[in-house]
Amino acid sequence: NVDLVSSQDLNADMPDELYPPKNFAMVEKGIYRSAYPTKKNFDFLAKLGLKSVVYLCQEEYSRQVLQFYRQEGITVYQHGVSGNKEPFVDISDEMIYSALQRLLDVSFHPILIHCNQGKHRTGSLVGCLRAMNHWSMAAIFDEYRRFAGNKARRADQQFIELFHRKFPKVKTDPRQHPVWFLG
Amino acid sequence: NVDLVSSQDLNADMPDELYPPKNFAMVEKGIYRSAYPTKKNFDFLAKLGLKSVVYLCQEEYSRQVLQFYRQEGITVYQHGVSGNKEPFVDISDEMIYSALQRLLDVSFHPILIHCNQGKHRTGSLVGCLRAMNHWSMAAIFDEYRRFAGNKARRADQQFIELFHRKFPKVKTDPRQHPVWFLG
Repeated sequence: NVDLVSSQDLNADMPDELYPPKNFAMVEKGIYRSAYPTKKNFDFLAKLGLKSVVYLCQEEYSRQVLQFYRQEGITVYQHGVSGNKEPFVDISDEMIYSALQRLLDVSFHPILIHCNQGKHRTGSLVGCLRAMNHWSMAAIFDEYRRFAGNKARRADQQFIELFHRKFPKVKTDPRQHPVWFLG
Repeated sequence: NVDLVSSQDLNADMPDELYPPKNFAMVEKGIYRSAYPTKKNFDFLAKLGLKSVVYLCQEEYSRQVLQFYRQEGITVYQHGVSGNKEPFVDISDEMIYSALQRLLDVSFHPILIHCNQGKHRTGSLVGCLRAMNHWSMAAIFDEYRRFAGNKARRADQQFIELFHRKFPKVKTDPRQHPVWFLG
């Protein structure tokens, strides 16, 4: 004798529709990814209860986005990468290591990774995270291409593959690891 | 003075690589999606600690998959939909309602939704779930197409859109709702 309800009974004061940012997805528990958020996305993002954002562009945020983050108590970690062609070719390894250190530390979660389109820079960072979590290259590239579509870049995928040899250099605190991290 | 370690120090007995199934992704906390799993994917899937599977094909499972589920204590809920063209056109509404009831009940989590390719049937069910969680149609179709690629079907997307008017008929127990369900 449980009272089952329909969602319509519950949500009299919910907005009809929420607008996730372009290329939004959950990566793992505590980690999301997307394109650059706009005002239309704020109601949706507010419901994620974000604590941090890893922002992969060099450009400054718009006033509007900064104000939204302030209001929600979200801390921004800007790891700026150029949006030019083949951006990950010239990126410093240390910038990737420090971004990964945050992703692998639950004290920064829930955390949103985003760049401009949510394809190349975000996809490359997520790919490195998957590599650290033992995903096969085929599965990593499958995911990368799902978001990049016909804009997939060979150089980004090459970057992820080469990173494989470097990730012992990413030092993390095992007591802060997310439950899904296999180490 | 925290002891930071590299993942290489921790994972002496981890396999080098894990093989997620094709089209694998996290949908929300407690819900995953993928194509039909094969033996190569079992090590990866075992690490998700799955409790249930929603299987959207009419075909019986292979002996190998059933044995893996038994070994892992995973319960299968088969909501068989034909894999023909436009499969969701003739599907009974009740089958979708009962699948959604499981997805919205944490006692079935963690749960994997899969069909054969992880594109059409899985994509349609995930789309209905997103609709119940107030995602805009643009965002739902964006996600649907990310997995279906150039096999995206207008009829599946039409099905999700029409479902919008029906979802008050999905009755659930609010005490069992996942935290991310906005109701």
